[in-house]
Amino acid sequence: MRTAKHIELLEAYVPGEQPKSRDVVKLNTNENPYPPTPKCAEVLASFNLDQLRRYPDPEFVTLRKAIAKRFGTGPERVFVGNGSDEILSLAARAFVENDECIASLDPSYSLYKTLAAIRDVKWVGLPLASLLLAYSSRRSTLSARLPQKASLFLWANPNAPTGAWTEPATISSFAHKFPGVVLVDEAYADFAKGNCMGLAIAPRNKNVIVMRTFSKSYSLAGLRVGFCIGPSDLIEALYKVKDSYNVDAVAQAVALAAFNDRIYHAKTVAAVKKTRAALIHELRRRGWDVPDSEANFVFAKPPLTTTAEEVFEGLRRRMVFVRYFPGPQTGDRLRITVGTPSEVKRLLNTLDTM
Amino acid sequence: MRTAKHIELLEAYVPGEQPKSRDVVKLNTNENPYPPTPKCAEVLASFNLDQLRRYPDPEFVTLRKAIAKRFGTGPERVFVGNGSDEILSLAARAFVENDECIASLDPSYSLYKTLAAIRDVKWVGLPLASLLLAYSSRRSTLSARLPQKASLFLWANPNAPTGAWTEPATISSFAHKFPGVVLVDEAYADFAKGNCMGLAIAPRNKNVIVMRTFSKSYSLAGLRVGFCIGPSDLIEALYKVKDSYNVDAVAQAVALAAFNDRIYHAKTVAAVKKTRAALIHELRRRGWDVPDSEANFVFAKPPLTTTAEEVFEGLRRRMVFVRYFPGPQTGDRLRITVGTPSEVKRLLNTLDTM
Repeated sequence: MRTAKHIELLEAYVPGEQPKSRDVVKLNTNENPYPPTPKCAEVLASFNLDQLRRYPDPEFVTLRKAIAKRFGTGPERVFVGNGSDEILSLAARAFVENDECIASLDPSYSLYKTLAAIRDVKWVGLPLASLLLAYSSRRSTLSARLPQKASLFLWANPNAPTGAWTEPATISSFAHKFPGVVLVDEAYADFAKGNCMGLAIAPRNKNVIVMRTFSKSYSLAGLRVGFCIGPSDLIEALYKVKDSYNVDAVAQAVALAAFNDRIYHAKTVAAVKKTRAALIHELRRRGWDVPDSEANFVFAKPPLTTTAEEVFEGLRRRMVFVRYFPGPQTGDRLRITVGTPSEVKRLLNTLDTM
Repeated sequence: MRTAKHIELLEAYVPGEQPKSRDVVKLNTNENPYPPTPKCAEVLASFNLDQLRRYPDPEFVTLRKAIAKRFGTGPERVFVGNGSDEILSLAARAFVENDECIASLDPSYSLYKTLAAIRDVKWVGLPLASLLLAYSSRRSTLSARLPQKASLFLWANPNAPTGAWTEPATISSFAHKFPGVVLVDEAYADFAKGNCMGLAIAPRNKNVIVMRTFSKSYSLAGLRVGFCIGPSDLIEALYKVKDSYNVDAVAQAVALAAFNDRIYHAKTVAAVKKTRAALIHELRRRGWDVPDSEANFVFAKPPLTTTAEEVFEGLRRRMVFVRYFPGPQTGDRLRITVGTPSEVKRLLNTLDTM
């Protein structure tokens, strides 16, 4: 055996299907239904080829400064990754010892568990309700629920696949008691009613990192750019463990263009939220159980006459892709990405004829 | 302490300086002096923006197939990374247990040592001569020189910063005796008189991976694309530990365009080799000790009247950047990237007036 044992045994994370056909309604990987701002095309078309022969800025200074300025903090508190997936992987290396473990909500983004397996440490998942109970009770301490050795808590907020959102004050109290680093994964925060960025930039913050991505609200999933903000010593640790040039020159430039076009961004986000409300309304009208969602997807349970798996398969045969996560906690629901109004219409029409 | 102890103690790898000024002669990071093929600009200019809102192909199938075809092997034996740096980092995770170590030549690409530190395992460096002696002798076995627990050998060939090249047959014999994975880092192979790709694709090969990059001979350092070829079980392990979407859609498309323009590539490589010969000739004429180089740089020792450090500083003040690695094994030489003929002329003129 030349492959490390824990890798040999590892079940790789399975990303959502990326069907090749153009005729598919693709509501399975929470992509933005609208293209990125046309400014991105301008950057690509006018990109100076000579810049490609040189290494990119290893510290993405221009992009980092723009992000820092927007959120009212210093660039030394900002890190940029090759997608927020890379930031998660770097965090698992920077903040976790070999004998410690990684924790998250359960259910949550299933990659967190895989990350712990790759890092060869234990993963602990806690239902949100138990977690809230544990931290809020005076007698039962957090450590009663989470092992002492949990050194990194990955908190998706809004959470996936549920779409549920937790108040920043709640996460702040939790972080105050948690002995390690709390990384709040705000991939979907632009679609939510609030966010935790205030915690990340607070000068007294010692252990909260807030992460965002260009993949969702900025429509740049194809480009791989994520960023995070937090205490400068933690941010510095991420710089130490990253590859020298982790974000390419094109990605840095295109992400900056998207970031700077605030009007386009606001318009896109508003359109998705409007369609989300319509989708929730229409599904509920058809007898589905659909909790409110603060993300660009809904986590919906079909009427009792059918199962989530049946609906998933039926939609798939009719070229409508949604996401189904088997298992006791998630298997009775489907995660449906908010598409364009016409994609949602096609989804609903397909459901109506099944 | 919330940062892992071994990261807290880590000295980050320091990449070569990236001076902002346009007036600099930049011969310090082994970049190609020529821009990538104009086909890359065409890809950028015509890139379908709608493709950016979707996740990129997580398995880069088109690029992988092109690479496999070129080298006469199957796509299941090809992996693509966000620069070959990422492949090195993934190899350290996939092939090394917590109690094992990573080995390489010494001196070699200094990142290898940093990678081991990030992975929190020991690094062992061996001078090429000792390594060759150890493996070629019948009585003294390899294990006398390398610890039993060395499970990954990173062999830069041509080596950096020396530019020295080792015959594939020698590396093959070494790999045959080495108990772990031998990753041959062929970043500079396109400038060399031969390469190890034959070992990587040999059906009986069990432990050799050969890695290439688009950063050097393809002039795409700014884009971050590297690839490697090896036994399919090892390649599969790399897929298991990578981020879901590690190579962005633009990078996949632009790298493919560069890879397919073989005429441009051959022309660029020939130009660099021609200038390399001229640079070596001119430095030797000035009393420098310059070993033959199979890479796009030379590792040259100035005449006894001065030191490498003095020349480095003097050149730097005159806006000519070369690379200086302090230390007993490398501190008497400078690593000078082969630039354009006019850059080399400016280097030589500057040396002549110092």
